[in-house]
Amino acid sequence: MSKGDETRTAILAEAARLASTVGLNALSVGMLAERTGLSKSGLFAHFKSKEQLQVQTLEYAGRLFVDVVLRPALTAPRGEKRVRVLFEHWLEWETETLPGGCVFAAASTEFDDQPGPVRDALVRQQRDWGDSIAAIAATAVAEDDFRPDVEPAQFSFELQGIMTAFQRSARLLGDPLARERTMIAFDRLIDSAH
Amino acid sequence: MSKGDETRTAILAEAARLASTVGLNALSVGMLAERTGLSKSGLFAHFKSKEQLQVQTLEYAGRLFVDVVLRPALTAPRGEKRVRVLFEHWLEWETETLPGGCVFAAASTEFDDQPGPVRDALVRQQRDWGDSIAAIAATAVAEDDFRPDVEPAQFSFELQGIMTAFQRSARLLGDPLARERTMIAFDRLIDSAH
Repeated sequence: MSKGDETRTAILAEAARLASTVGLNALSVGMLAERTGLSKSGLFAHFKSKEQLQVQTLEYAGRLFVDVVLRPALTAPRGEKRVRVLFEHWLEWETETLPGGCVFAAASTEFDDQPGPVRDALVRQQRDWGDSIAAIAATAVAEDDFRPDVEPAQFSFELQGIMTAFQRSARLLGDPLARERTMIAFDRLIDSAH
Repeated sequence: MSKGDETRTAILAEAARLASTVGLNALSVGMLAERTGLSKSGLFAHFKSKEQLQVQTLEYAGRLFVDVVLRPALTAPRGEKRVRVLFEHWLEWETETLPGGCVFAAASTEFDDQPGPVRDALVRQQRDWGDSIAAIAATAVAEDDFRPDVEPAQFSFELQGIMTAFQRSARLLGDPLARERTMIAFDRLIDSAH
């Protein structure tokens, strides 16, 4: 990695931390300058516009998500085991990776009514993620861990619902039972696939 | 209702419509002045600060939610029927009541890391809403529509997960199957309570 790339990655890492807390919309070059100690003009050399900064922050977070969640799942055995490993690492992502939780969750409600390149990047990522969950659920069908009539896309939809219920319950409501409720819901979804 | 109250209600109705689209954070007195045709100073006479405007917008949306979702459910017969009526009207709220969908969903991810009166108001409302769902699920247990070991708070948690999956799928991803997937998930949750 060149020196320039290293700097850019360090900036994006800070941008992702900030965006997880204040939201992608509130992320500004000024705020980032303060946090990284770099000048605003230096930052503008890396990102020509706020929109570019937002898109690149999402892309950086997407690579981080692959490292933290998807890669460990893909090294687990195919089938239900892989679905469980996926979910465990996804919970880790929600609670430990970034200080403000999931940067995609916040961006999803921020940008659902704002057409443009940020929304487009987010939609692409979220579709890919939904497809990845479905593909992993499909391995559980193929391995006979799940019934043959379990529809992977429906399983993916419901798993995402459980995780957003966790986000809301843990981060907004501070419910001490959030994780327990999430695991009960997850086990019920798995059971219904047997 | 006095003339002043009428004006205030009309302003808050517009504020709720705006907040559903741009988010509660981006809602400004200037934007509201443009949409209502009132002067900024006139608006400041109603709301002393942006924070007050945000809190009152949430409170207005909360009253609207009670009218659209909770009241019709409470007039339905106790039991599973009431749970179904609740869910149908909640879907109507998500898709038809405000132009940008659910104002609480957006605010939940905006304010989960922002302490203050807006977050406090939101948390209070969301806890009340979770409790209302649980209370309605409890009528289904009491009427023997649901098994006696169904835990109303867990049912409430999972129902909220299904609705957030719908919001994301319909509003962000524009999935034409969003409503169908939501109904399948809902029926699975109901079935698991039998």
